Amino acid sequence: MSVEHLHAVPHLTTALSGPLHDIESHFLAHQAHIEAWFRSEWVKTPAPFYASVDLRNAGFKLAPVDTNLFPAGFNNLNEAFMPLCIQAAQAAIERVCPDAAKVLIIPESHTRNPYYLESVATLTEIIRKGGFEVRIASLNEELPLPQTIELESGRSVLLEKPERRDKRLTLGDDFDPCVVLLNNDLSGGRPAILENLDQKVIPPLNLGWADRLKSEHFAHYRSVAQEFARMAEIDPWFIDPLFRNCGEINFMKRDGEECLHKNVTRLLGDIQKKYDEYNIDKPPYVIIKADAGTYGMGIMSVQSAEEALELNRKQRTKMSKSKGGQAVTQVIMQEGVYTFETWGEQQAVAEPVVYMLDHFVVGGFYRVHKERGSTENLNAPGMHFEPLAFAESCNTPDESKAPDANPNRFYAYGVIARLALLAAAREYAEHP
Amino acid sequence: MSVEHLHAVPHLTTALSGPLHDIESHFLAHQAHIEAWFRSEWVKTPAPFYASVDLRNAGFKLAPVDTNLFPAGFNNLNEAFMPLCIQAAQAAIERVCPDAAKVLIIPESHTRNPYYLESVATLTEIIRKGGFEVRIASLNEELPLPQTIELESGRSVLLEKPERRDKRLTLGDDFDPCVVLLNNDLSGGRPAILENLDQKVIPPLNLGWADRLKSEHFAHYRSVAQEFARMAEIDPWFIDPLFRNCGEINFMKRDGEECLHKNVTRLLGDIQKKYDEYNIDKPPYVIIKADAGTYGMGIMSVQSAEEALELNRKQRTKMSKSKGGQAVTQVIMQEGVYTFETWGEQQAVAEPVVYMLDHFVVGGFYRVHKERGSTENLNAPGMHFEPLAFAESCNTPDESKAPDANPNRFYAYGVIARLALLAAAREYAEHP
Repeated sequence: MSVEHLHAVPHLTTALSGPLHDIESHFLAHQAHIEAWFRSEWVKTPAPFYASVDLRNAGFKLAPVDTNLFPAGFNNLNEAFMPLCIQAAQAAIERVCPDAAKVLIIPESHTRNPYYLESVATLTEIIRKGGFEVRIASLNEELPLPQTIELESGRSVLLEKPERRDKRLTLGDDFDPCVVLLNNDLSGGRPAILENLDQKVIPPLNLGWADRLKSEHFAHYRSVAQEFARMAEIDPWFIDPLFRNCGEINFMKRDGEECLHKNVTRLLGDIQKKYDEYNIDKPPYVIIKADAGTYGMGIMSVQSAEEALELNRKQRTKMSKSKGGQAVTQVIMQEGVYTFETWGEQQAVAEPVVYMLDHFVVGGFYRVHKERGSTENLNAPGMHFEPLAFAESCNTPDESKAPDANPNRFYAYGVIARLALLAAAREYAEHP
Repeated sequence: MSVEHLHAVPHLTTALSGPLHDIESHFLAHQAHIEAWFRSEWVKTPAPFYASVDLRNAGFKLAPVDTNLFPAGFNNLNEAFMPLCIQAAQAAIERVCPDAAKVLIIPESHTRNPYYLESVATLTEIIRKGGFEVRIASLNEELPLPQTIELESGRSVLLEKPERRDKRLTLGDDFDPCVVLLNNDLSGGRPAILENLDQKVIPPLNLGWADRLKSEHFAHYRSVAQEFARMAEIDPWFIDPLFRNCGEINFMKRDGEECLHKNVTRLLGDIQKKYDEYNIDKPPYVIIKADAGTYGMGIMSVQSAEEALELNRKQRTKMSKSKGGQAVTQVIMQEGVYTFETWGEQQAVAEPVVYMLDHFVVGGFYRVHKERGSTENLNAPGMHFEPLAFAESCNTPDESKAPDANPNRFYAYGVIARLALLAAAREYAEHP
């Protein structure tokens, strides 16, 4: 019995989808090799505890544009695949800490976001059903704690105050966890209370935005994509967004504009060459964003170097701030990947987000946005998207079906997302 | 979104279900402890690669009656949970053999059974989708090989001839597997071609019926059940069928009848005591079956010791043969557990079978039989049952629902099935 009928699946504009079907065919033909390769890579560099990867599907190209190692949005996954999440969470926790019984979750501190807390509630449920005692500690010092927050789903979340006792993080005498599970990306820096704990902190603090750079991630992704493309016999460009990065940029003071201009120009030229090679009749564009940090703050989409420089003051102010209030000092310029997946009569743009627990792909959803174009970023601040859960899992490739049939498209998402996960694993191996 | 509506669930006759709801409540209340205990047990004695466990649910008692370490029936599982099977198979194979890429399945040799081959086809699919190259070798020397067998489901199975090359089992020059996966319970003995291989054989030959005794399994189960019952604060009898075994029995020659009579009498007395303790107004009964071997051959259900002795010749002939033609020399007498789960208007008897890959419960189905009573064995030879896939997974216990709500009943099945799996793991640890 298939659950296929329970959700429809976005439509991929087929006019431009030629090379992608080609990718999917290659993935199917090399499936056993691909999986064996992943297995051997996970032995060398174990997967982070969890991740979500934003993909963009241009038909001719399927590539990751963001890798989040402290994922939210678990509440947007298909409930039918909760058993898959629970099983993967069991395997993941067993691997890092076989004798764990109690897990303390540290969520983001901006706890007034009800959507985010729904995700925390689902994450808690997944781990609890996996057979662990789970409690939640907030690092937000302005909140009166403990505090129970009722959610729209009818669930509630109890936030408690963590206590540092020598080298352990506890909830009073009551709860001494074996594992501290970070769901906080540390955009605001590394909290002292989490440093040098006896307990296992997963993912480790070094994977927070306080220490990561997107450009480093995508540099690792580039070599992962090259190795993979060789094996799958495809042009690595089909799965890898080109990028360049600049040193110090201060948008307010207009420092570093020259570097920006030069790199955007080069990048657009490189993309155009690829578009020419594959007869893609679309204007190339470039995404400019903070090299550290998350969320859609301070993200620009430009089709020329001049556009980047003609920023008015308002835009510049926006660019100079990122989540947590940090001044943007380094930026990454990344090839813009068109989204040619659309949903419904309105042709709303749909961007897939894939979720992984350990090295298992456990599901995903589409961010469907009705008021945005195919070149715009769908993870902008305050942006309202409608989540559309993946109708099928990402681990049931089916050779007997067409390469672009749903199970095979979802499988392809899962492959690309795991390449990004592997890049993150290598990133961590360099700074353990 | 729940898949609950996709299948109905058998009805548990509630008149006698008092103590069981009690069990389920205990399982829910102790869930984190139970899972932590299982995790620590799997570290001590790793789970066999796979298993199916037949359960009987009497309302007042939920117990395993058979543990199959070479399970068939994968085709009867709910297709919606294939992703769960695929993920668990990946984890299971990775654990025993992280660099495996090629898997050779050795099915049962009675290859003309189309139902069985459907299961082999599903098992192949699960492992193939998990990212392994899979081929199938038959040990049946009477079959012309290679041979493709078309199945009713529209799938086909290619059986090939294995070749022993020094210490490796191969399919010619073509296919040198890393793992030999036995789906053959070795009722007919240990095939020489599988002895002393370089390749990992999973499950190991020692777990075949050539070397196992049910009484040994249930002796391990007894101590597992006692440890577990202490933790879950229940009477171990609620989950453990009483049993006794005899030495040599030859039904044809009427050797060993005295032992049979004595033990059946004692067993019935012990069951009656328990029935009195819990006010169960049903006649106790005893199942007599071969201590080694599988399938429902040579199984008797009796309500008195005399009944066991009054066997007519026909029944005795039946009892003296078990699968593979072995003479029955040892028998096990086991407390009969009533089945009070019924399905549909006809009140057909429904017996749950739970499937595990590694220590993960991946699903199950009910054997629904319309022409049998609640004391009869539902796995008899040539018996036609209708499989009714479990509507939900066994790993989503839900405290917010009643203890006997579907997810909690399925969770309870999964707990008991894993206790039997743990007994098998300990059995193996004793004879590695």
